[in-house]
Formats: sequence, structure tokens, C-alpha cells
Amino acid sequence: MEQPGAISELIDALKRLPGIGPRAAQRISYQLLSGDRSDATRLGRALLEAVDCVHKCPRCNSLTDKDLCIFCSSPNRDDSQLCIVETVADLMVIEQSLSYNGRYFVLQGRLSPLNGIGPHEIGLDKLIQRTAEDSLKEVIIATSFTAEGEATALAITDLLTKHHPQLRLTRIAKGVPAGAELEYTDVNTVAQAMLNRRVREL
Amino acid sequence: MEQPGAISELIDALKRLPGIGPRAAQRISYQLLSGDRSDATRLGRALLEAVDCVHKCPRCNSLTDKDLCIFCSSPNRDDSQLCIVETVADLMVIEQSLSYNGRYFVLQGRLSPLNGIGPHEIGLDKLIQRTAEDSLKEVIIATSFTAEGEATALAITDLLTKHHPQLRLTRIAKGVPAGAELEYTDVNTVAQAMLNRRVREL
Ligand SMILES: [Zn+2]
Ligand SMILES: [Zn+2]
Repeated sequence: MEQPGAISELIDALKRLPGIGPRAAQRISYQLLSGDRSDATRLGRALLEAVDCVHKCPRCNSLTDKDLCIFCSSPNRDDSQLCIVETVADLMVIEQSLSYNGRYFVLQGRLSPLNGIGPHEIGLDKLIQRTAEDSLKEVIIATSFTAEGEATALAITDLLTKHHPQLRLTRIAKGVPAGAELEYTDVNTVAQAMLNRRVREL
Repeated sequence: MEQPGAISELIDALKRLPGIGPRAAQRISYQLLSGDRSDATRLGRALLEAVDCVHKCPRCNSLTDKDLCIFCSSPNRDDSQLCIVETVADLMVIEQSLSYNGRYFVLQGRLSPLNGIGPHEIGLDKLIQRTAEDSLKEVIIATSFTAEGEATALAITDLLTKHHPQLRLTRIAKGVPAGAELEYTDVNTVAQAMLNRRVREL
């Protein structure tokens, strides 16, 4: 279909967002450009500003516009607990569930040997360093209950048992539906799973 | 929830898009800012570029980055037909249905007297001027089959019968499900409705 280049480009850029199909991209584009364009300008500026000033937290891999993220720098969080998640979106779901007040560590996704994604790629070397701190007592593994998420949990258990045998390793309870992504689970289920966490055994 | 300002602002701006809730806005934001940020930069630039260079076509009210839009300027479209739609998104659905090759006129929405939206607000004065051209033979009314869309169709029929009695007025067939928005209808149904259009009688 022929369309002005600037609109085509906007539709193409919107289509690349997760969960937005071609029809929705088109509808959003025309709605943003019809009438008052302040929403479009605001979103455009917000994107460029965020790309410019938001970076990965050097301590936990979450996102921040400061030296350290709010989860690492807050004096009100419990240094004795560390929760390991696959993505920043997963971290935010746990925050919203109001069931946890320790520190976090965000992996770079999940182990996927068939796709060449091994322990190094998801940041397990850095996790071993991070878990060497004396104040830390418990590591809560909150990866997804998918095959890859479970394999990742197993690899973490294996490594931490070897390197830091004094740590208590726990896994959030399987209240999260099996096969589901943590990110898409309702916060009450996530809260239940956090409360029901059990000691991890090999 | 505490979050860096630039991320909060991005989430807020995304939440204002049609069909994107708070959870999706959050997920999209973190995904855009994790790893490679080229999608975020691309979308941000596309938005600002489109706001800058896309404007309303002075002849039909659709969107363009030229003096006239492609639907008005194309020499390959039939000057004897004019299709009236409520929004540019509706126009694009008709284009995708490949059932029409005439010209268009985009209203500024639908009549809604209770909200103070009358004939002038939706651009019916301009429509009367636009339909005064000699080459025009048929006006196809493609407003939605909602109460407001039907009231708008009735007002258009009334006005055009009075001002340009020589015109053939048609209405797309009610193949589009009653009560539905044209914009959300699948293109095959839209094509059927276009083919089955009937002469409009008061
Ligand atoms: Zn951090
Ligand atoms: Zn035009």
C-alpha cells in the first residue's frame, strides 16, 4: 500500500514492539497523527531521552539513570536476601507483588544451549562474584517455570552450591503456572509463589 | 513504585497509546531499553519526524507529507466516486480491502450532539463544497453502523440531497456487524460491504 514515507516508517517502528501487530501499528499511527499530536511528541521525546540517560545498573543489571539503581542503592532493603530474575520486567512484577524487600540480580535471559546461550552469556560469572558478599544469607531463584527457566535454576543451584556452600538457596514456589512466563502472571500468584518458596535441593 | 524518571515518563507516554494498558507499557519499556536500543531510537525518531512532516490533506482530511495526499493526487483513481469515512484508519481498512478505487473524504469523527459535536465540527460544510464538483457522480457513505455513525450517515444524506440532488448517494452494506467499529472489522467483511452498497433513500 502506498503511504507517505514518514507514516510507513512510524508503522514499521511500532510493529517491532512486543505484542503490537500490523493492524494495531497502523491504528496507533493514524490516531497519534490525527488531531492533537502532543502524545506523539511526548512519546518520541521520552524514547530518545530514555535511550540517552538510562543504562544497566553495574551491580544488578536492572535499569537506572543513576550510578546504581534504586534497588541496589536503597538503604531500606534487606542485604541478606538476593532474588535472581531473568528480566527487568520480571523484577518489576515481583516489586508490584509487594512480597519481597531484598536485593535483586537480573540475568541476561535464560540458558539456551541450542541457541549458543550458555552460563557466560546470561551473566552467571558476575552472579558468583555478587554472591560472595558476607552480608548475603539467602539467594531466591525466581527464574520462569519453563524448560529453559528450570535448566537455568538448576545451573545456578549447581554453581552456588559449589562456590558459596554457606548460602541458603531457595526457589519461588510453583504457584506460578507451569510453562508460563513470570512476566505475564498476575501479581497475587507471584506473591503466593514468593511466600511459599522452599529450600532448593539438588 | 519508585523508578527512574526517564523510565516512568516512557511508561506513562506508552500508556496513552490506544489499546496499551499499564502492564504492557511497562513490559514494552523494559524490553526497548534492555540490550540493543536501536528499536527505541528508531521509534522515537519516527514519531518526531512524522509529527514534523505529516499534515492533514487540505482536500480530503487524510494524512500526507506532500501538498495533496496520494488518494487525492493519484491520476489512476476514479473522480466520479467519493467515499466518506470517519477516520484515516477507516480509510486504510477500505484500501486494504481492495474493493474501491475512487476518492475519499475523511470526516472529523461522528456527530455526537450530546458532546457538542455537530455538523460543523465534523466538517460537513467542507464536504458540501467538495461534492460540488462536476466530475463527481456517486457518494458512498462508509460511516460506522453505530448509533452515532448512522446519525452521521442520515445527516449527510439529508444535506447532500438538498445541496446536490443530482448525486447518487449510496451506503456500504450492513455486512459490517451492527454496533461494530469499521476500523476493527476484518477486510473481507469490509470488501463485502463495499460490493453490496445500496442506493441511499431517506
Ligand atoms: Zn542495581
Ligand atoms: Zn487527500
